[in-house]
Amino acid sequence: MTHLNSLDTPALVIDVDAMERNLQRAARYAHEHGLRLRPHTKTHKIPALGRRQIELGAAGLSVAKTTEAEVMLASGTPDLLIAYPVLGEAKLARLVRLASQAPVTVALDDAGVAEAISAAATAAGVEIGILAEVDLGLHRMGVGPGPQLLALIEAVRALPGLRWRGVTFYPGHIKDHAVESQPALERLRGQVPEMVAALARAGAEPEIVSGGSTPLLWDSHTIPGVNEIRPGTYIFNDRNTLLGGACGRADCAATMLCTVVSVQGGRMMIDGGSKTFSSDRSSATEDALYGEIEGDTGARFHKMNEEHGYVDLSQAARTYRTGDRVRVLMNHVCTAVNLHERVWAVRGDEVLEAWTVAGRGKLQ
Amino acid sequence: MTHLNSLDTPALVIDVDAMERNLQRAARYAHEHGLRLRPHTKTHKIPALGRRQIELGAAGLSVAKTTEAEVMLASGTPDLLIAYPVLGEAKLARLVRLASQAPVTVALDDAGVAEAISAAATAAGVEIGILAEVDLGLHRMGVGPGPQLLALIEAVRALPGLRWRGVTFYPGHIKDHAVESQPALERLRGQVPEMVAALARAGAEPEIVSGGSTPLLWDSHTIPGVNEIRPGTYIFNDRNTLLGGACGRADCAATMLCTVVSVQGGRMMIDGGSKTFSSDRSSATEDALYGEIEGDTGARFHKMNEEHGYVDLSQAARTYRTGDRVRVLMNHVCTAVNLHERVWAVRGDEVLEAWTVAGRGKLQ
Repeated sequence: MTHLNSLDTPALVIDVDAMERNLQRAARYAHEHGLRLRPHTKTHKIPALGRRQIELGAAGLSVAKTTEAEVMLASGTPDLLIAYPVLGEAKLARLVRLASQAPVTVALDDAGVAEAISAAATAAGVEIGILAEVDLGLHRMGVGPGPQLLALIEAVRALPGLRWRGVTFYPGHIKDHAVESQPALERLRGQVPEMVAALARAGAEPEIVSGGSTPLLWDSHTIPGVNEIRPGTYIFNDRNTLLGGACGRADCAATMLCTVVSVQGGRMMIDGGSKTFSSDRSSATEDALYGEIEGDTGARFHKMNEEHGYVDLSQAARTYRTGDRVRVLMNHVCTAVNLHERVWAVRGDEVLEAWTVAGRGKLQ
Repeated sequence: MTHLNSLDTPALVIDVDAMERNLQRAARYAHEHGLRLRPHTKTHKIPALGRRQIELGAAGLSVAKTTEAEVMLASGTPDLLIAYPVLGEAKLARLVRLASQAPVTVALDDAGVAEAISAAATAAGVEIGILAEVDLGLHRMGVGPGPQLLALIEAVRALPGLRWRGVTFYPGHIKDHAVESQPALERLRGQVPEMVAALARAGAEPEIVSGGSTPLLWDSHTIPGVNEIRPGTYIFNDRNTLLGGACGRADCAATMLCTVVSVQGGRMMIDGGSKTFSSDRSSATEDALYGEIEGDTGARFHKMNEEHGYVDLSQAARTYRTGDRVRVLMNHVCTAVNLHERVWAVRGDEVLEAWTVAGRGKLQ
């Protein structure tokens, strides 16, 4: 048996039992409510975990980039959504190669982007699915849900090589600490069916209405019209998910194993900083901490440099010595995973295996 | 000729002429003031650039981790500082292997860490240089500059397999927006010579007194007693360096080439977010921007997700269309470089070559 303590630090460790429970719970929820589950694999970036999501009934997988899609083909997914517009020669070449290997759908909000994809698909003799991206409040991507959306859909439907499959939105503005979440959720419960009805009246009833994030996961069935969800973080969860109320502490499957490298005058330094955790602040609280030291909420991880995590011990529950190891619940697991070549699957103190993060660093 | 526009985005591009000027200026400064220059390679993580720093007169190179040191051996550096305590079996094994290939020095602040290194060095029949780390105001690593420092040095000197070489500090608290910089710099100008004098009186005169960061680079000669500097960022510079006043705009050698992937209602999205830039805020200003769109300071890059850079165009100097390309001056180049497998050396619009970031992601 390989013991956790034999791992060199910093090391990102995954509790496989908690992960499996998370996967099964979401699969059950989606099944019970008749929702297509299409997990976003940006959280784990590991084809074997994508395969497990498919085994448990996921209708397909989501990725952000064509390069991530190439990696995720190894999961054997029956349907692949690139939830990001695909622009430019190199990406279009990858896209049509992908489409010759698996059914691929792209989310976009611009008729010009659709035209370029249509031209590439037609030249390559493949078909690309399209979801029209609509903005329901996040103000990131997406056209407005009225005439703009209909115009985009009509443009897509008129183009050869494309198959219009429906609409997609990302409800990232809900359960974000900057917005009161309940009114926004209530608004969404009106916006989606209204949008779907208007499209149906115009002869453009969407087959897929794709929404759903991890913070909103368990509320997905309360939004009439949504029939597909794309949560990512739920596989591992993180401090944001916990503080946002979408999971319990036992559902946090990912922690960072760190070593205390210095203890001086009421503070300690751990060997993980922005190069190990990412410097993402919490999106669920204003506390400005970078994570939580497992078993010691009084030890405040309040600052970081690339290789240093600053932990204020003035309210700590215990004492620490140089060389001690701690496990840290990170704010945002997706950006942390992206920094690691591999993560470690563990059960209790036993290290089961290393998983290569094959989709790490796929920027293009 | 390969044109910049043929690069797939996002792409981190380095203006080689600006970089070379930055390297030469720092080399000249160090030479003029009799300072050993030991650049921290965490900024570039590229052995060929380390070699160029050595060619221009650097006395050695600095790294943060033993795994980075392994990569940087290829630079042919005559002296390698691991500016971070080395703890644990795996790292000690790497350390003594390194020491059999090149002179290696470790910075530490704990006699226990020194003892473990001594035992490993003795067993392997190698010698490890040691710098005692002192805290002169950052409150990160380091013992106090009084009796604690002397005790640490005496412990190191008594251990076999170690060669005590001097003291090191990191003045990261100076030119940080959270602290008024002038009083802290004035204090440092007293602290260092006082510390050196006290050590000399106790029979422990340090051969090396190592300080120096990029924000403080050009003030290094005004701190009596400092004889070595370890700037990292100066090779490329970034928005932090610019806003902190330690470089001019023409000295910013690194920019992120991004594509506009969406323009909707007074905002645009670029294809770089926290996975491309890192989510580091500026350390030199409170403006909460994530970077500066080259040539358009009115376009405010104010928010990011992993793959999305949110740019508010309400004050923009020009209009943008989906598919346009922009270059972005990033807040913090070190954490950005760490996210890229390779960066592109450019002169004007010409791409000269790709440089593999061999030291990227070396966490342990």
